[in-house]
Amino acid sequence: MTSNPEYRLFDLGSNPTLAAEIAEKLDLPLAKVQLEMFADNEIYERIEDSVRGMDVYVIQSISDPVNDNFIKLMIFIDAVRRTSAKSINVIMPYFGYARSDRKARSREPIVARLIADMLESQGVKRMLTMDLHTGQVQGFFDIPVDHLLAMPVQTHYFYERGLIGDDVVVVASNPSSLKMVQRFAKILGAQWALVDRRQDEDDQRTKPYQITGNVAGKVALILDDMIDTGRSMVLASEAIQAAGAHHIEAVATHAVLSGSAVGLLENSPIQRVVVTNTIEVPDNKRFSKLVDLSVAETFAAGLKRVIAHESIAPVLLSPDNPEV
Amino acid sequence: MTSNPEYRLFDLGSNPTLAAEIAEKLDLPLAKVQLEMFADNEIYERIEDSVRGMDVYVIQSISDPVNDNFIKLMIFIDAVRRTSAKSINVIMPYFGYARSDRKARSREPIVARLIADMLESQGVKRMLTMDLHTGQVQGFFDIPVDHLLAMPVQTHYFYERGLIGDDVVVVASNPSSLKMVQRFAKILGAQWALVDRRQDEDDQRTKPYQITGNVAGKVALILDDMIDTGRSMVLASEAIQAAGAHHIEAVATHAVLSGSAVGLLENSPIQRVVVTNTIEVPDNKRFSKLVDLSVAETFAAGLKRVIAHESIAPVLLSPDNPEV
Amino acid sequence: MTSNPEYRLFDLGSNPTLAAEIAEKLDLPLAKVQLEMFADNEIYERIEDSVRGMDVYVIQSISDPVNDNFIKLMIFIDAVRRTSAKSINVIMPYFGYARSDRKARSREPIVARLIADMLESQGVKRMLTMDLHTGQVQGFFDIPVDHLLAMPVQTHYFYERGLIGDDVVVVASNPSSLKMVQRFAKILGAQWALVDRRQDEDDQRTKPYQITGNVAGKVALILDDMIDTGRSMVLASEAIQAAGAHHIEAVATHAVLSGSAVGLLENSPIQRVVVTNTIEVPDNKRFSKLVDLSVAETFAAGLKRVIAHESIAPVLLSPDNPEV
Amino acid sequence: MTSNPEYRLFDLGSNPTLAAEIAEKLDLPLAKVQLEMFADNEIYERIEDSVRGMDVYVIQSISDPVNDNFIKLMIFIDAVRRTSAKSINVIMPYFGYARSDRKARSREPIVARLIADMLESQGVKRMLTMDLHTGQVQGFFDIPVDHLLAMPVQTHYFYERGLIGDDVVVVASNPSSLKMVQRFAKILGAQWALVDRRQDEDDQRTKPYQITGNVAGKVALILDDMIDTGRSMVLASEAIQAAGAHHIEAVATHAVLSGSAVGLLENSPIQRVVVTNTIEVPDNKRFSKLVDLSVAETFAAGLKRVIAHESIAPVLLSPDNPEV
Amino acid sequence: MTSNPEYRLFDLGSNPTLAAEIAEKLDLPLAKVQLEMFADNEIYERIEDSVRGMDVYVIQSISDPVNDNFIKLMIFIDAVRRTSAKSINVIMPYFGYARSDRKARSREPIVARLIADMLESQGVKRMLTMDLHTGQVQGFFDIPVDHLLAMPVQTHYFYERGLIGDDVVVVASNPSSLKMVQRFAKILGAQWALVDRRQDEDDQRTKPYQITGNVAGKVALILDDMIDTGRSMVLASEAIQAAGAHHIEAVATHAVLSGSAVGLLENSPIQRVVVTNTIEVPDNKRFSKLVDLSVAETFAAGLKRVIAHESIAPVLLSPDNPEV
Amino acid sequence: MTSNPEYRLFDLGSNPTLAAEIAEKLDLPLAKVQLEMFADNEIYERIEDSVRGMDVYVIQSISDPVNDNFIKLMIFIDAVRRTSAKSINVIMPYFGYARSDRKARSREPIVARLIADMLESQGVKRMLTMDLHTGQVQGFFDIPVDHLLAMPVQTHYFYERGLIGDDVVVVASNPSSLKMVQRFAKILGAQWALVDRRQDEDDQRTKPYQITGNVAGKVALILDDMIDTGRSMVLASEAIQAAGAHHIEAVATHAVLSGSAVGLLENSPIQRVVVTNTIEVPDNKRFSKLVDLSVAETFAAGLKRVIAHESIAPVLLSPDNPEV
Repeated sequence: MTSNPEYRLFDLGSNPTLAAEIAEKLDLPLAKVQLEMFADNEIYERIEDSVRGMDVYVIQSISDPVNDNFIKLMIFIDAVRRTSAKSINVIMPYFGYARSDRKARSREPIVARLIADMLESQGVKRMLTMDLHTGQVQGFFDIPVDHLLAMPVQTHYFYERGLIGDDVVVVASNPSSLKMVQRFAKILGAQWALVDRRQDEDDQRTKPYQITGNVAGKVALILDDMIDTGRSMVLASEAIQAAGAHHIEAVATHAVLSGSAVGLLENSPIQRVVVTNTIEVPDNKRFSKLVDLSVAETFAAGLKRVIAHESIAPVLLSPDNPEV
Repeated sequence: MTSNPEYRLFDLGSNPTLAAEIAEKLDLPLAKVQLEMFADNEIYERIEDSVRGMDVYVIQSISDPVNDNFIKLMIFIDAVRRTSAKSINVIMPYFGYARSDRKARSREPIVARLIADMLESQGVKRMLTMDLHTGQVQGFFDIPVDHLLAMPVQTHYFYERGLIGDDVVVVASNPSSLKMVQRFAKILGAQWALVDRRQDEDDQRTKPYQITGNVAGKVALILDDMIDTGRSMVLASEAIQAAGAHHIEAVATHAVLSGSAVGLLENSPIQRVVVTNTIEVPDNKRFSKLVDLSVAETFAAGLKRVIAHESIAPVLLSPDNPEV
Repeated sequence: MTSNPEYRLFDLGSNPTLAAEIAEKLDLPLAKVQLEMFADNEIYERIEDSVRGMDVYVIQSISDPVNDNFIKLMIFIDAVRRTSAKSINVIMPYFGYARSDRKARSREPIVARLIADMLESQGVKRMLTMDLHTGQVQGFFDIPVDHLLAMPVQTHYFYERGLIGDDVVVVASNPSSLKMVQRFAKILGAQWALVDRRQDEDDQRTKPYQITGNVAGKVALILDDMIDTGRSMVLASEAIQAAGAHHIEAVATHAVLSGSAVGLLENSPIQRVVVTNTIEVPDNKRFSKLVDLSVAETFAAGLKRVIAHESIAPVLLSPDNPEV
Repeated sequence: MTSNPEYRLFDLGSNPTLAAEIAEKLDLPLAKVQLEMFADNEIYERIEDSVRGMDVYVIQSISDPVNDNFIKLMIFIDAVRRTSAKSINVIMPYFGYARSDRKARSREPIVARLIADMLESQGVKRMLTMDLHTGQVQGFFDIPVDHLLAMPVQTHYFYERGLIGDDVVVVASNPSSLKMVQRFAKILGAQWALVDRRQDEDDQRTKPYQITGNVAGKVALILDDMIDTGRSMVLASEAIQAAGAHHIEAVATHAVLSGSAVGLLENSPIQRVVVTNTIEVPDNKRFSKLVDLSVAETFAAGLKRVIAHESIAPVLLSPDNPEV
Repeated sequence: MTSNPEYRLFDLGSNPTLAAEIAEKLDLPLAKVQLEMFADNEIYERIEDSVRGMDVYVIQSISDPVNDNFIKLMIFIDAVRRTSAKSINVIMPYFGYARSDRKARSREPIVARLIADMLESQGVKRMLTMDLHTGQVQGFFDIPVDHLLAMPVQTHYFYERGLIGDDVVVVASNPSSLKMVQRFAKILGAQWALVDRRQDEDDQRTKPYQITGNVAGKVALILDDMIDTGRSMVLASEAIQAAGAHHIEAVATHAVLSGSAVGLLENSPIQRVVVTNTIEVPDNKRFSKLVDLSVAETFAAGLKRVIAHESIAPVLLSPDNPEV
Repeated sequence: MTSNPEYRLFDLGSNPTLAAEIAEKLDLPLAKVQLEMFADNEIYERIEDSVRGMDVYVIQSISDPVNDNFIKLMIFIDAVRRTSAKSINVIMPYFGYARSDRKARSREPIVARLIADMLESQGVKRMLTMDLHTGQVQGFFDIPVDHLLAMPVQTHYFYERGLIGDDVVVVASNPSSLKMVQRFAKILGAQWALVDRRQDEDDQRTKPYQITGNVAGKVALILDDMIDTGRSMVLASEAIQAAGAHHIEAVATHAVLSGSAVGLLENSPIQRVVVTNTIEVPDNKRFSKLVDLSVAETFAAGLKRVIAHESIAPVLLSPDNPEV
């Protein structure tokens, strides 16, 4: 077995750029899989390189088109388990459907758990993913989940630009992201604030926005795990602009950018939209304010440590604030 | 519990016409489910009617868009199992991906088994389906599969039109469908024939077509379980036209009609294309030669017997040849 | 089967008062189970009433002593599944270990999921529980979880005392409970506030507390899902006392009251501690400030509807604010 | 671990000759297992050589006595999994019960799936088998199935005897084997034909046999996957003899030869019966026309590649027609 | 559903007489199953009566031919679960392979557990069986096991014959059956004794037999759960004859009678061999000393109570000593 | 991977002395796990050393406090399986709850099976344990169970003291332990005896004790697998003292010593109580008659062989009677 590599890395098409970067950093060419859609949209796959006795790693996000991308992954997993591969491991930069993580109303599904069940029941041995919408999604799996964070890459970006210290305020646009905001602020040595959207059940939005913390005269970084329709971020940006913030940026890991998000963001007080490449932004959604940071190094480092049977804890550290 | 119906029937959108017909024949209104696609194409579902203590039946084909339709079904199943429904039963008029039922080459998946596993592992208790591509797919399930046949409806259609007896020849366009063709021919009191497409691995197709059986001067019904790209049927029709058939029709249960199938069929010697409504043919694929027979009565009768705990064997009989 | 009741309700000892109340409201005597601890602390159980063909409901919280109580439940479940009972359903007023719902650090367990797995793998069919620490714990189960809320009982208590309207402020002692606080405040027509405990990783607590919202001159109700050591609530009470609140109460569903909680609360600015009986408070932890509201009616109503196969949604409504 | 072999090969008695040949080609002595039948026909087994940490391969066909042979295998598997062997892999030259692969009538079992389930549920990790009755049986397993073919050995045999080219016709005795016949014919550069047995439901056999293709004056090789009662092959041989074939041989992988098969074949126009040793033909069933080809080389080559984690694709190639 | 019986009783052939008796006592005709062995000894089954929505009970012992009988049962179970039967329940008067219940030496299987696993994994819901070799076999199942006893029938037989009181001694031929012997003796008001066979590992049998308890001048009933080869009982009978017993009978539930058991027993001091019909003794094994008691009433009574959802405890009582 | 050890050994606190001894003999320091009990008695664990890619062995007995100790083990297992450890193996010197191994009465649990199920369902790969109460408990597991024996250590102890030969009698205090007593006696070249406690259901204990075998003037060793309340041993000691034994010792593997066992034993004719350290005897239960033999060497030797993939059979041999 010495002459063969002991593992193979596959890309199923959701993140071609990120996958190529990761492969390059690992100095391992992506293995080949034939992947077609028949005329009736059934997916056909065939693994072209032998994977007998190998650990298989496959990169695929559940990003738009979410269902096609997920089924591509499931079919790939089925093909692998019918070979004599040693294990199948999924690298999922963006775990779609993660917001469906509990029943908000009766007779709703919990799709994130369904996704986890389908992956696990087909024999997936390990997941690598990044910035799950809630940490509890880890508990939807019984297999190991290596949960990587974009925060080291994101905070480093602001360090490099000098956007640190008391003149910067990191803003949560809803209570759920407040803890993440506080951690982010701490690394930057910045303040934090909360914009209360009053997203009540009756949704009347007549009450004025309430801002906790001081944003006046500051650089405000509105932080969330993802930007989907962009509406929440834009409303928050308008509130803090009104409250006197002098420069506003939006920061998120996952660039879902669905519907009219691009237009909303372009016409908002937000001056820069800083995302990562866990979701590959298609050309028709790219716009001048958009900056996408690559998390390839993070995934490559995590993968290297997984393969070497080393703790991934160091990968989770922020380079600019190593004790965190 | 006497005042409530003990079961509910849901439709997830793949077969709205067939579902409505079945519901009408059962004299039971379709139950309500909220079904949306978010801007990022994630599916949201919520069951609106209570299903506590009830047997739930849901109608959904894995037809185009196959992956969206399948995930809609899986999410629905997840929502049901999180309620306290008594059971969840799937009515799948068209079981997509059924052709992926074995490994033709190494490192291929067997998607039909994957589909079966995902359904079963989420607690589906029973399947009703029609004309599986191969009968062995039943063995991919450990749960009961009620396998209905379109043949009674199809042969009745030709009986009514008087297309029976020795002047009719039922034609198989490949050896795999020969057994089905022989059964069909027997009911009609007709002859059978086999067109050998010589679909060899090198696929050179230089050898002339070879026809087993006599088609000259006859009404030829080319029969298969489905029409996908239509190429196979059209090539067969050209061969039997050349061999002297005086009228040619194509007969199939599942109208996949993918890619340029409609154009191919329109410009072929086939004079009528007789399908069923296991797949709802969209308006842009309807053309003058197309006739679609409804299998609603068959499904409704099967469902009635399932609910009454009676054998479904009578539903499988041909009305015109009852001893079959 | 007409002469026998079709279900039986058992109590394993964690909540004797609540269990008796529920049984009384259901007009169904508690069924008998012999429950002993051997000299070596092994638990012995034997179900005394026949449960053949019946739905079994068992009331048990994972409250102190948590491990003994949980194992009592597991052993009971094993005994039931070896009979020919129709189903086994768990009523768990307090789901202990629920705070272990994700990996905060590497190489930690997720005990709430482990608990869910152990229950499910032994064949539990349904869970009724109340105010899970996070809603995502529902997703740790694949079986139906009926998630009851204490909020209707709690808010009704304050309605009756007239503690409603703008002079009342509901206070979150950490961001995680902010959403719950906002819902509670809305029902009371009250304001809300957030006390930021700055519980950072370095835990230095040198920074002054920061209060979002106005508490001066108001009746403050510090709300959380549980009171464990009481420290968090007491620190918050001191901060809002300093900020001018004129009357302070603590409100929680689960009265864990571990360690020196009672002493802390007694010597704090909190004037009343309003909990429920999801955990039976032992006599040695009862103190003059403590008020425990009974949730027996809520559980009995939920159970009645479960047994009658009716939606439990009405049980979740607040009587004083029915549209919520 | 260097001094020990890393895997062990066992023989449970169904194929002693083939097993010995495979072991010899692998240069690995068969490991020892004590195997007895008690006076009451219960089977006793004990593995005599330690298998800790090793990959265990066991050779056993489900051939007559099918149930004893299958239970011997299951008991062996149980013994292995209670040791600390690394894996258990089954080499099943003949997969009995494979014809029970779908429900031909209601309330029938699907025994091939049952067999697959029993093997899989006891932890078998991989199957090696040959010429399954239908390829779909692979889909009855969720574990890897290495599906070997006897065709390279069989066609090589006819190549050596010069029975190739247009003077040879390969004959299918039913439509199901037509595809296999066409592949076989292509390798030999021969013609193909189909004898239609009209095995209709009413089974009256009054209609004359119909032969597709030309057999007059040719060497006819009637090919099927197995010879069970021999009736189907003998009837076909009579039909093609009547049609002028000048020399007839029967070719099959699996020599089931049940009931009066030997007598039927001896008294038929078939001049040679060419089978393989996937089933060990007992002395009392050996007759002068019988030739059995050994597939030991094929299994040994497949096993070597499995152990070396190499693709088994080359083993599937025909030596005389390598591009197939 | 009112006109149909809600359950069906099947017999797979191991115990035709017992099955007919049970059916008669239940006043329910045995349902029909087609059961054939093909020429190659593969088993074919088809359930002829519809079982949709019904509880299916099937009677089958794992008696000689043990493997055929067990596979017949498994195939029947597979057929049932592919129908829409409500449940499948196994009545196994004799649970063969029960002596393989632990590893006496390393690398042995535990076949009784394997049997349990295979039954359970195919969905059996409940077992009724009698006098398991060790009670722990119940723990090999996770499903309910109703464990009936032959002792009430057996002791009643001796009561009727007046063989009770101090002149009777019940003898254990090995320590394992001593507890059962003591219970039996107590019901009869008799003494007990132990014959120590000194069946040591070296098995030299040179030491004289040692008898605990007084047998001289008494009627001795050697009791065990089964008579297999008969050797153990015969050796014990010789020892107690030498010790002065004036009349000796052998008593057992299961008449395995394998090998030369009949000859051994005929030529021994044992004057009567009292067994039950949990195993149907074939004509060629019947001999003049043999008496077989019917346990049909016990099974019928147990089954009635299972169906009526009543406790089976009363069935376990001895009619002559009801307080036991 | 060469520089890292490939496995880690953990101790969860039930057997600190034994664990330290085993670790020392393996020359491998115990790995670190943080283990706390919160104020509400919930257990918190975190594995401190990385275990990626390693075989994890954890030492934990289900000894008093049995439920806390068992849950500690389950939580540890959950934490391990969420890492990427290669396997998790449990070393359980004392398997508590083993006496609950069958249903003595209806509606009882089988807790030993429940324990086995919970361990297995969370992915434990292998068990090492010692002197299970009944060997059948091995069959409650589907995973390998290495069943070590204390007998070599125990008999060696008496060899060293010269307590061998015909002047010694090994005594069973109930029939269940008679086989073990006979094996023990054989190694010592001693006699055996049985004290019949007449532990009948009515439990009147009025009848005098009955002793099988000769104890007069001998050194009597009363042997059982465990000493729980001590009552059974003490009653036996009084009986054999009355029968003339001149020196009496009690011998057992597991020192449960619950309730007033210590007092009972101190005031009994038993002159020495010889146990092992499978259960760590706390200081408050140590008394002058107690001798505890260490089984660390046995576990260390077993573990070494498991790790080296060697048969553990040699570890089971008695050094003083090697052919056993």
